[in-house]
Amino acid sequence: MPQLRVALAQVNPTVGDIEGNARIVVDRARRAADAGAHLVLFPEMMLTGYPPEDLVLRRSFLTASQDAVGRLAHELGRAGLGDLGVVVGYLDACRDPSPRLGRPAGEPQNSAAFLHGGRLVARYAKHHLPNYGVFDEFRYFVPGDTLAVVRLHGVDVAMTICEDLWQEGGPIAVCHAAGVGLVANINGSPYERKKDDVRCELTRRRSAEAGATLAYVNMVGGQDELVFDGDSIVVAPDGEVLARAAQFDEELLVVDLDLPAAHSNVDGQVDADDGTSMRVERVTLLSEPVPAYDAVRGPQCERLDDCAEVWAALVTGTRDYTRKNGFSTVLIGLSGGIDSAVVATIAADAIGPDNVHVVGMPSRYSTEGSVADAEELAQRRGLQWSLLPIGGVVEAYEKAFTDSAAGLGGGLHGLAEENLQSRVRGTAWMAMSNQLGHLMLVGGNKSELATGFATLYGDTAGGFAPLKDVPKSLVWDLARWRNAAARDRGEVEPIPQQIIDKLPSAELAPGQLDQDRLPPYDVLDAVLTDYVERDLGRAQLLAAGHDAEVVDKVIRLVDLAEWKRRQYPPGPKISPKNFGRDRRLPITNRWRETPAPVDAAGDDSAAPDRATR
Amino acid sequence: MPQLRVALAQVNPTVGDIEGNARIVVDRARRAADAGAHLVLFPEMMLTGYPPEDLVLRRSFLTASQDAVGRLAHELGRAGLGDLGVVVGYLDACRDPSPRLGRPAGEPQNSAAFLHGGRLVARYAKHHLPNYGVFDEFRYFVPGDTLAVVRLHGVDVAMTICEDLWQEGGPIAVCHAAGVGLVANINGSPYERKKDDVRCELTRRRSAEAGATLAYVNMVGGQDELVFDGDSIVVAPDGEVLARAAQFDEELLVVDLDLPAAHSNVDGQVDADDGTSMRVERVTLLSEPVPAYDAVRGPQCERLDDCAEVWAALVTGTRDYTRKNGFSTVLIGLSGGIDSAVVATIAADAIGPDNVHVVGMPSRYSTEGSVADAEELAQRRGLQWSLLPIGGVVEAYEKAFTDSAAGLGGGLHGLAEENLQSRVRGTAWMAMSNQLGHLMLVGGNKSELATGFATLYGDTAGGFAPLKDVPKSLVWDLARWRNAAARDRGEVEPIPQQIIDKLPSAELAPGQLDQDRLPPYDVLDAVLTDYVERDLGRAQLLAAGHDAEVVDKVIRLVDLAEWKRRQYPPGPKISPKNFGRDRRLPITNRWRETPAPVDAAGDDSAAPDRATR
Repeated sequence: MPQLRVALAQVNPTVGDIEGNARIVVDRARRAADAGAHLVLFPEMMLTGYPPEDLVLRRSFLTASQDAVGRLAHELGRAGLGDLGVVVGYLDACRDPSPRLGRPAGEPQNSAAFLHGGRLVARYAKHHLPNYGVFDEFRYFVPGDTLAVVRLHGVDVAMTICEDLWQEGGPIAVCHAAGVGLVANINGSPYERKKDDVRCELTRRRSAEAGATLAYVNMVGGQDELVFDGDSIVVAPDGEVLARAAQFDEELLVVDLDLPAAHSNVDGQVDADDGTSMRVERVTLLSEPVPAYDAVRGPQCERLDDCAEVWAALVTGTRDYTRKNGFSTVLIGLSGGIDSAVVATIAADAIGPDNVHVVGMPSRYSTEGSVADAEELAQRRGLQWSLLPIGGVVEAYEKAFTDSAAGLGGGLHGLAEENLQSRVRGTAWMAMSNQLGHLMLVGGNKSELATGFATLYGDTAGGFAPLKDVPKSLVWDLARWRNAAARDRGEVEPIPQQIIDKLPSAELAPGQLDQDRLPPYDVLDAVLTDYVERDLGRAQLLAAGHDAEVVDKVIRLVDLAEWKRRQYPPGPKISPKNFGRDRRLPITNRWRETPAPVDAAGDDSAAPDRATR
Repeated sequence: MPQLRVALAQVNPTVGDIEGNARIVVDRARRAADAGAHLVLFPEMMLTGYPPEDLVLRRSFLTASQDAVGRLAHELGRAGLGDLGVVVGYLDACRDPSPRLGRPAGEPQNSAAFLHGGRLVARYAKHHLPNYGVFDEFRYFVPGDTLAVVRLHGVDVAMTICEDLWQEGGPIAVCHAAGVGLVANINGSPYERKKDDVRCELTRRRSAEAGATLAYVNMVGGQDELVFDGDSIVVAPDGEVLARAAQFDEELLVVDLDLPAAHSNVDGQVDADDGTSMRVERVTLLSEPVPAYDAVRGPQCERLDDCAEVWAALVTGTRDYTRKNGFSTVLIGLSGGIDSAVVATIAADAIGPDNVHVVGMPSRYSTEGSVADAEELAQRRGLQWSLLPIGGVVEAYEKAFTDSAAGLGGGLHGLAEENLQSRVRGTAWMAMSNQLGHLMLVGGNKSELATGFATLYGDTAGGFAPLKDVPKSLVWDLARWRNAAARDRGEVEPIPQQIIDKLPSAELAPGQLDQDRLPPYDVLDAVLTDYVERDLGRAQLLAAGHDAEVVDKVIRLVDLAEWKRRQYPPGPKISPKNFGRDRRLPITNRWRETPAPVDAAGDDSAAPDRATR
């Protein structure tokens, strides 16, 4: 059987940085050639970064991508890399224009190019377009209906893109019909917990269906709310995993493959077994196999366990959001509680403790212990600590309200008073962020955000929220896991045990505890998982065994907090349904799963609460 | 020719309020019957409201809609309205399940029901699904491929939905092939400036293509950022406009039609002339025409002029966002400038001056005139005025910074100092909003938001931004138009002339004027229109005659402000491309149309500016 040495370039492009991304391609192509590879694969939309969203609809951006892929082919040839086959994702326009409303002629396509000999020798446009969850590809792209089969060193290679694997039929069916030997599948597949298991099974199934070895290359790194976890993999049609790359790290995965000699000449229209047909186009570069050589085995990286995987996703997302947006330092308000402690630890792992500035802003309701615990956290890891008490500012507000005729003469009370303290901190953080150039990180977690248990412009103020998609129960698990990991390495535990052990409190009123207003977090998180992630209705939640009173309270809180969630900063997605791109609900929404409250007006009068803790 | 009296119910449903929306249907059906109508049409997704976004993906919501349409048919029959044909939009599930990833079996469809005799007699599912601009219908729905033709009083009536008109081929082509006499087209078509002209031409063209009279019914009212403007219309295949409803007002438009007698029995599969085929299904209710009667002419409402139309959209959007979210009062910070003056006037028109609370919060940099102008504005219209000076709070912050070791010992300066004052106001507004239950309205306009010329958590704090999609130049035009309208009605001009005449200033530093940092607003707005609305690239902007220095500055400002725009509250859409659902750009984005700055690091170091004025 012909041999082929294939390199999978698991790399970290940046959306919009077409030139920088092209430089990564040239660099990795050179390394692949140095490693003796015949073919190197880069991720989906490598040149533009993924997802570029509405940049796709800018004609100047589309042209820049088209120009860049031509220049890249030329540059690879000039650099002596013309013998290497290079598959690279980019943005191109449909050659078969079919204009319709809101879509100009020459519509965009999510494309892959096969570069060889200093030229672009074949193109492929993604056939199956995902338009669910975080994906909006029907907004941007028209589907492709042509499968290019490139004969390289006597092996027939076809290009496919990401979702092409996740739906039945289409290019995989056509690969089988066309007798393809190697399917190069390039991806921009975002991380979710345990998704690596699903991917592995999927690639094995599709490889068997195609009757071809399947090389799956994915990007790594953070892009706004998405984190790409790499996990590139090569599988044989019999299900054997031939090589597997690390999660979350850049890597050039090199593997030697024994592949069937090209044996088919099927071309033209082929039934794609998905209600469409596709055209097979053949390009012959080199019909003869390479001379036999000693093959090396590809590496098989170990999988991370659940907490390690989540931690790596949060660190990656935080690092790349900071760096790719041009910041080198971050600021975190330390309350002495578990959330801000975990955020500070993530940040220190992401960009180094010297770049992590932390500030304590005690008020009259803060306990002594809170400040001491915060300071101890900072000292253990060497974070940049400072203290800024806010009592004087809160008093000045109270005086201004009392002196004015603005309707607050009797002083603030209840939620308005609690929120004031939180907002006084938010404003002080932003002043520090503006003057000192730090990116402000937010401490809130997914359970708080789900229930609206946070103050708009207060503790939610900032640019990035590392725990946005992390339920409170998991925050504790991560803290324990991170401390254990430190112990295993003989390091000091970064998070003081008393911060993990204390009862959670916003400390905005005397003796206040979260449990006074919310169900215990383990109970709350279980209902949230079923209501938010699984979209169960009230009847199904009760059937699943949840307590009716808790269910009604949680549904009401979640439904009323949509407005607040809309104004929350981005954070790394780790779940099937985060509160960012995944879940898109109207703000003005009178749908109520719960029975009408006794006082029907109570529902309406709670609406101002949308802007309160 | 058979006669038919048709009523178009131009009404205002609320997303999620399935029961309330059904009550509207029964009420208008009764009024239509009282007016002698044989058929009444309700808008797209009438029962669920539109757009319900991810509510569609909740099984409990889908079931509630399906149950509601059955109950509605029964209730209409019981109420003696069974003889009336009722076409109503709702959410249903596809009867021909084809599961795929992320989509369960029985997938949702954007549907219309024909109710008669207490039963649902025919269904139609939208064939053309829009997935551009504000629309995401491929996320939610699977397309329909069946056209129901209902014979009512000897006339063949077909149902179609909104986008079915906006694309070539599909149900309109099939209506022609099936010899339909009346096309009932139900809509949830959002307002844009001058869209009424486009709609009128479109309905005339499609009516001619179908060879049938076309009755187009649209909803009115606000839903988050969308405003529906009504503008329901009935056109004959020869292009004659037979009746036209008002813009922005609820109305029951009743029109008598002479329609061709049912003459075709085409059914089964028909080529839809869009690459698909559709199945024609016939339902015969009543084959005999009604006895001849004296027809009345339908009304032809006058069109509003440009400013009146925009003003009505802003008032409608503000009124419905307030009311549908359960608020009865609003709060506005009055600076003495044009933006907050126009917002307060819109609010007074929307919910009445008694419900509009306005507060002045002067700082050390506010001019005497600003406070006096604000107070005069409040007095002219009878708004609820109060004053709350913020100097003491700003001083308390300065003292806290000076006393602390948080790196601000030398005091705040520049943007950080300016932003502090704005955020001190934002926090005070939110305290008032929380304690007194007012919805906080934001004064910012589209030109500011485009360029990031606003303070996060400061002047951008609040729940709704009536001018979010209104360029500054248009704000002035609207102020002059509103004053002129008052003069025409013999009322006091609501906006003092000195507020219109003064040079715009944020008053956050001594003698500060907007023109110190931005191009003159007429120049700025012209570039913004071409860059944002038309998506022109830099080369095209220069070719269009814009000044290179201005272009480079504006592009840079707009590109860096994406983060701030993401955290902005919603506001009524009036343009083809607002900064809400229309334009979806990544935050992390290194695409730069402009030439690299001399100091390349300047681009990165500007990034913290994303969180500053």
